[in-house]
Amino acid sequence: MRLKDNDKKQALFNATIKLVNEIGFDSSSVSKIAREAGVSPATLYIYFDNKEDLLVSTYVQIKLKTSKAVLNDFDDTLPIREALKDIWVKMFKHMTQNQDEYKFAVQFANSPYISLVNREELEAHYEPILALLQKGIEQKLIKNVETELLTVFVFYPLTYLTNPRSCSGSLLGNIDIDTAFTMAWDAIKV
Amino acid sequence: MRLKDNDKKQALFNATIKLVNEIGFDSSSVSKIAREAGVSPATLYIYFDNKEDLLVSTYVQIKLKTSKAVLNDFDDTLPIREALKDIWVKMFKHMTQNQDEYKFAVQFANSPYISLVNREELEAHYEPILALLQKGIEQKLIKNVETELLTVFVFYPLTYLTNPRSCSGSLLGNIDIDTAFTMAWDAIKV
Repeated sequence: MRLKDNDKKQALFNATIKLVNEIGFDSSSVSKIAREAGVSPATLYIYFDNKEDLLVSTYVQIKLKTSKAVLNDFDDTLPIREALKDIWVKMFKHMTQNQDEYKFAVQFANSPYISLVNREELEAHYEPILALLQKGIEQKLIKNVETELLTVFVFYPLTYLTNPRSCSGSLLGNIDIDTAFTMAWDAIKV
Repeated sequence: MRLKDNDKKQALFNATIKLVNEIGFDSSSVSKIAREAGVSPATLYIYFDNKEDLLVSTYVQIKLKTSKAVLNDFDDTLPIREALKDIWVKMFKHMTQNQDEYKFAVQFANSPYISLVNREELEAHYEPILALLQKGIEQKLIKNVETELLTVFVFYPLTYLTNPRSCSGSLLGNIDIDTAFTMAWDAIKV
């Protein structure tokens, strides 16, 4: 049975994530990725211009899936802290449940390939979070500093806490989410 | 003029950092690294067993240099917040002044190679920081949670804030250190 177009694309994303996590970027050749995905290299080139395009598209897809998962039913009528906690907990869970994707994403974000990504375009999908932080500043609940500085202290620790490559085995999986979010909130609250 | 032994080793570390940052792990072959360092591949193999050993040694050297830079004249008679701020500011400056080393280190820490590093051995060099946090917990100044969770919220944001690959150009270099440390401290204080 032949895979449908969307399935093929997703199979290529999955194969890219799996191989890069296992053997790194450069050993993950186009032919190995195609074989892992169960398609021919010629098929791969229907969807992606080259290896760079495949890697960048895989990264962008991971980030867009995250923004959908955490912002899909975003309720901006909630008090600031609750609204942020809702997003934060969803992100914690999403990253924990998609560790392979995040292992790839962090590796990608710290590789030379990251320069190929359109940062502004990607950040636009996270706009509701920035608007929420801005509202918190106006309500004098959140420190009046650059929103990027706020997002670093609130969200960046998740990259560590949900990643089995960084977080120790004894902490990973045993994190009290309420406590951890309180720490994130305390960093930015007035 | 021939390089002395220590100079050769340092030249190989520098070449590894430069090449990996520019072209990634796998394209950085042993022969390219040796050429960049101005030594023969045979000389490289006097100091390092293989490419993995060279990469791991480069990473470990970066981490040890950091622990020396931030803990060299550590004064454990200072009040907890001041002692921690002293370490934090030194780490901020050290990472900012050694961006290439840290670009390499973050990339390495998020690659499959990290599994080759003896984590406990490396963390032993940061023991005074863990002892300081523990003292803060006992004095009821710092939240009574796992010290790893404390270090994530205090120190992990530095990885983002000092890295030109993650931090936006407008924030990088314009960070108010007192404000940023206050955020780190607020995350962990009781």
